[in-house]
Amino acid sequence: MSDAQDAQNGYHGVSLATLRRFGVDVWSDVEIETSRGAFRGIILPRSEFDDSTHLVLKLKTGYNIGIEIRTITAIVELGKTEAHYKIPEKDFPVSPEKPSVTLLGTGGTIASRLDYRTGAVIPAFSPGELYGAVPELADICNLTTEKLFAVFSENMGPQEYITLAKAVGAEIEAGVDGIVIGHGTDTMHHTASALAFMVQTPPVPVVMVGSQRSSDRPSSDAALNLIYAMTTAATSDIAEVMVCMFGSTSDEYGLLHRGTRVRKMHSSYRSTFRTIGDIPLAAVTRAGVRPFRSDYNRRRDDREVGIHPFFEERISLLYYYPNMHPDIIDSLVDNGYKGIVIAGTGLGHVNKSIYPAIERAVSAGVAIYMTVQTLWGYVHMFVYDTGRDLMAKGVIPTENMLPEVAYIKLGWALGQTDDLDRVQEIMLTAICSEITEREPHDGYLVFQGGMPEIEEFLKKVNR
Amino acid sequence: MSDAQDAQNGYHGVSLATLRRFGVDVWSDVEIETSRGAFRGIILPRSEFDDSTHLVLKLKTGYNIGIEIRTITAIVELGKTEAHYKIPEKDFPVSPEKPSVTLLGTGGTIASRLDYRTGAVIPAFSPGELYGAVPELADICNLTTEKLFAVFSENMGPQEYITLAKAVGAEIEAGVDGIVIGHGTDTMHHTASALAFMVQTPPVPVVMVGSQRSSDRPSSDAALNLIYAMTTAATSDIAEVMVCMFGSTSDEYGLLHRGTRVRKMHSSYRSTFRTIGDIPLAAVTRAGVRPFRSDYNRRRDDREVGIHPFFEERISLLYYYPNMHPDIIDSLVDNGYKGIVIAGTGLGHVNKSIYPAIERAVSAGVAIYMTVQTLWGYVHMFVYDTGRDLMAKGVIPTENMLPEVAYIKLGWALGQTDDLDRVQEIMLTAICSEITEREPHDGYLVFQGGMPEIEEFLKKVNR
Repeated sequence: MSDAQDAQNGYHGVSLATLRRFGVDVWSDVEIETSRGAFRGIILPRSEFDDSTHLVLKLKTGYNIGIEIRTITAIVELGKTEAHYKIPEKDFPVSPEKPSVTLLGTGGTIASRLDYRTGAVIPAFSPGELYGAVPELADICNLTTEKLFAVFSENMGPQEYITLAKAVGAEIEAGVDGIVIGHGTDTMHHTASALAFMVQTPPVPVVMVGSQRSSDRPSSDAALNLIYAMTTAATSDIAEVMVCMFGSTSDEYGLLHRGTRVRKMHSSYRSTFRTIGDIPLAAVTRAGVRPFRSDYNRRRDDREVGIHPFFEERISLLYYYPNMHPDIIDSLVDNGYKGIVIAGTGLGHVNKSIYPAIERAVSAGVAIYMTVQTLWGYVHMFVYDTGRDLMAKGVIPTENMLPEVAYIKLGWALGQTDDLDRVQEIMLTAICSEITEREPHDGYLVFQGGMPEIEEFLKKVNR
Repeated sequence: MSDAQDAQNGYHGVSLATLRRFGVDVWSDVEIETSRGAFRGIILPRSEFDDSTHLVLKLKTGYNIGIEIRTITAIVELGKTEAHYKIPEKDFPVSPEKPSVTLLGTGGTIASRLDYRTGAVIPAFSPGELYGAVPELADICNLTTEKLFAVFSENMGPQEYITLAKAVGAEIEAGVDGIVIGHGTDTMHHTASALAFMVQTPPVPVVMVGSQRSSDRPSSDAALNLIYAMTTAATSDIAEVMVCMFGSTSDEYGLLHRGTRVRKMHSSYRSTFRTIGDIPLAAVTRAGVRPFRSDYNRRRDDREVGIHPFFEERISLLYYYPNMHPDIIDSLVDNGYKGIVIAGTGLGHVNKSIYPAIERAVSAGVAIYMTVQTLWGYVHMFVYDTGRDLMAKGVIPTENMLPEVAYIKLGWALGQTDDLDRVQEIMLTAICSEITEREPHDGYLVFQGGMPEIEEFLKKVNR
């Protein structure tokens, strides 16, 4: 193996030397002895930017671990497994009566040929590769794919939101029947809300999808999530920006969440995405989409869509904590920030000691908006003195907008105008349910698979 | 009415002049005409620190609103209601066979004679006043009360935590059978975790309680929460720092939450406190406490307790958001912060662009700990490159410690020592379930009143 190939597999310096010393390579099935115990697994490739002090091993459990090179005392090769990582590629069957769907790739777990983050045999990305891995897709739509970029979702930001919004606009103009966006799950809800503001009243579904467990694990949600997302994009009457992910602990259905009312609520569960302060838009199974409500933007035949790709990057989101010092806000003002979203305690409160910093920020023309860190419920700043004090100082309550959504919306609003009255008008006018008139009782922590409506739906679908 | 009395009722300047102009006063039942519509309610007193540009009206619904003085065109007095706000005070019946409980007041909604925040006729604070308002208390315990301070909970901080911890220690030494702490709900969970670290293995229950709705509203949880908290303090075998609050949408029981695993999750619901990533410790009804588990610190007859009242105030908690800029962390370092807790995305991630700032912070001796902003689930930084990169830079994962709890624990750890190895040892050693070995499936968003165990318990109690 040449140095160039090694570099491509991500090992260099000390780690490369260690692989060579023990005569093993990427994809070797090995037993590694270390000063912290023995490990059995497959040596995975790494990305070219990785450090050289670790070796990454895929364990039988499907989990990866990083092993510090300096702790390694021996490596024994038991076999090679590269063959398992080949993707069967077939021609994606196209027929004129099927709807057309475009999959836009951003670099999330689904949209990679070989995911360097997990070492997983991901169902890949080209239509042929996807068909080879998930043949059901051919029954749903005619598929086109386009890779926009390849970043981990924690590195997604305003520039990617703008590129994505424009790409969605171009696809709509080109006549597609639905759009699926493959995205890492970490910040999928941030991107979803950015797209909800940047892509207004689209004529077709715009469906974000990812997976919590890579497709080489028995419990993977990758294929099903993709099937549900494609089904939604191809057939659903709901023409909004949505997140389509695993519904509950059962894999009998997926849920469609509004892009502005969804948040990742578990670091590892597949049922991590939850509609907050409302019920989800719909359930989706292989049989189709079943809305839970009727107040949504409907699919249309026209190609009209408002693409508003703006973002002011000097904004911040502060979750208040007890004893927060004024320097936290002073520094933001000194560093030229134009907007701050605070996630206050209770109904929208912070401590008295940062009042002066808030006054200074407002005087300096910084837009300050209040949300609640309880996540569920509304800001109500008229109830207590603290809230009234803060409003008197110019802090603006944002009803029941989620903190993360308010952050995205403030960047989007300030990206359009410097006029703070206009910004306030944009912030407080609901565009796509980021503010709702009421939160139903079953929108609080209780939306479970056991919900009667879903149960009924499943009975019908499964019979 | 004299100026001095007016000042005491909080009206001054323009607002006082307006009350006089229309011949009305605090406690007047009025109809107010404004440029934004008419309002009917009772004029409430305000605190002496309030602005003079608003008048506060208690509506029939129990909600208060602030009315801008400049919008008022007329005020008509319909009656006076001060009489309703008198608290019937009686001698609290004491008998030697009842357990002794001390109520420590911090200024929350329960522990005020007249709550200026809500204008509510709060069941007051002295044992006699409390007995007059909630006669059931006399069946539970012999009550002593002590007012430590009177601050809104959003203004609670390290100094109050320390005072409170010492007061708890003194009460235990004095021989009390249980302690109840009245506290505003905004930051009750922060204070609970501070006390859990500062008051270790107490021999008696230490129960924090508050109310989400003031006691003059039909739906108030104030009296029941107090009864449940007193019952717990007087009789429970669970000798830990707990939060006792409304259990579900039914008021048939309260729940006891561990101080380190509880978070306020709704800005206005009574069922706002939720055990995160675990099931609660117990349910409590008028009939007594029913533990859901057996792994708790038990009540003892000795008076031994570890009081560890330390706190380093230069710490911060950052909830990561997409496109976070390095200046956020640079400013903390420049301003002398000694510790930062990050609530990362997914399994504990941030974007690459703040890596250099993290490196600088670690080099400067700042302790950086990672939690997850999903709230549920564990940090797992070995799974992806981002996590491994961050660990290589010195960021330390904290398992499933809640972000707010990690913030409090880091302040407490750094308050004891500057030795960062020792701090790490403290941070990663579970003291009172702030880190647990696993999160049960029914600890994820699903703990409802419908849980079979509770249902069964209620059937038994109610028959």
